[in-house]
Amino acid sequence: MVIESYVVVHNIAKRHNVGTLARSATAFGVTELILVGRRDFNAFGSHGSTSHLRFRHFHSLLDARNFLKEKDCDICGVEIADGALPVNEHPFKKSTAFLLGNEGTGLSAKECEICDFFVYIPHYGCGTASLNVTVAASIVLHHFGVWAGFSERIREGNKFIVAERPVKQGRYCTETEESIIEERKSRKEHACNGFFDETKNGDSTSNLLDALFSE
Amino acid sequence: MVIESYVVVHNIAKRHNVGTLARSATAFGVTELILVGRRDFNAFGSHGSTSHLRFRHFHSLLDARNFLKEKDCDICGVEIADGALPVNEHPFKKSTAFLLGNEGTGLSAKECEICDFFVYIPHYGCGTASLNVTVAASIVLHHFGVWAGFSERIREGNKFIVAERPVKQGRYCTETEESIIEERKSRKEHACNGFFDETKNGDSTSNLLDALFSE
Repeated sequence: MVIESYVVVHNIAKRHNVGTLARSATAFGVTELILVGRRDFNAFGSHGSTSHLRFRHFHSLLDARNFLKEKDCDICGVEIADGALPVNEHPFKKSTAFLLGNEGTGLSAKECEICDFFVYIPHYGCGTASLNVTVAASIVLHHFGVWAGFSERIREGNKFIVAERPVKQGRYCTETEESIIEERKSRKEHACNGFFDETKNGDSTSNLLDALFSE
Repeated sequence: MVIESYVVVHNIAKRHNVGTLARSATAFGVTELILVGRRDFNAFGSHGSTSHLRFRHFHSLLDARNFLKEKDCDICGVEIADGALPVNEHPFKKSTAFLLGNEGTGLSAKECEICDFFVYIPHYGCGTASLNVTVAASIVLHHFGVWAGFSERIREGNKFIVAERPVKQGRYCTETEESIIEERKSRKEHACNGFFDETKNGDSTSNLLDALFSE
């Protein structure tokens, strides 16, 4: 049985989290990062790793779920839900897609609905209600790799060896004419509510899809 | 035997990392965050958790080492050094202080010298040479908590319960007249080389020590 892991992010709230998330995802052997709904983000913090990661986009959670179920994947919510198990107990069975909560509010009821089970990360101190979402995802992906017995990447000196940057492919695996039309529509809608106004900000370059491989 | 964990950061390079690091440190029951050398940072990303964490400052690595050895702590470098062990094997024996590498260059020879042993986080993918330093620290602190058997923080709904914010104390545990003079001197020196010029930046409020509890 080939074991794979996926990361699913629904309507990214803080776009700059995706860069660091992508860096962790490639470190821990994630097959694809799946964006549902909003698909615009910048690669700040990825240290070039976005070019080594496959991205996929779906407009709805249900589409994402169907895709993952065709691959016989479990869908695991990273959330302190009823019956959630500590991630260090490795409650995994097969290929798994990890659905991450939005920063702040966690997973919504609709998001929880598509999950087969939940894991959480135990806290031992009293100073915070939750972890940064990328930190939480990284801990979970690390444990999944340990459980799956993924083979360890070779090292040189005190760094893991980075592969040659792959030839630029289509940005997303599912770039169809239909999805591009949908994308433009969504872009226009978001522009109306100021969603694309963040380009004034200092350290993050503007993007949409095009910045994915720009680092 | 009471088991404790400490985090040691030498000359912080990206100050905004300390906020998220503090958030993870309090989640994982860290006793103190020890800053060596540079002690200025902002609390961006901490979500208020800096007020629940004790900070300590030393001017030299040797001072930090002496303090930790008096507490019978092991010092563990988080670095892919010779003989480093995978953190998921829990190669811990007693209270441990984790020395984090600077973003980019990792631990220097001088930093490695004060370490008793090293742990690293296995990678399974080819896209990045290293993890974000806060992500790496969080994975290590999580494992230490599991190994130490720290008792789990109580939860309510899908969040861990945050304690009342403690009464404001001296910012650092070792605030002496001498250290304040040293601090002012260091501040002046750094100001000369533009180290405090980052206040123009959008999303990070200015600070020095005073912003520690300002969130």
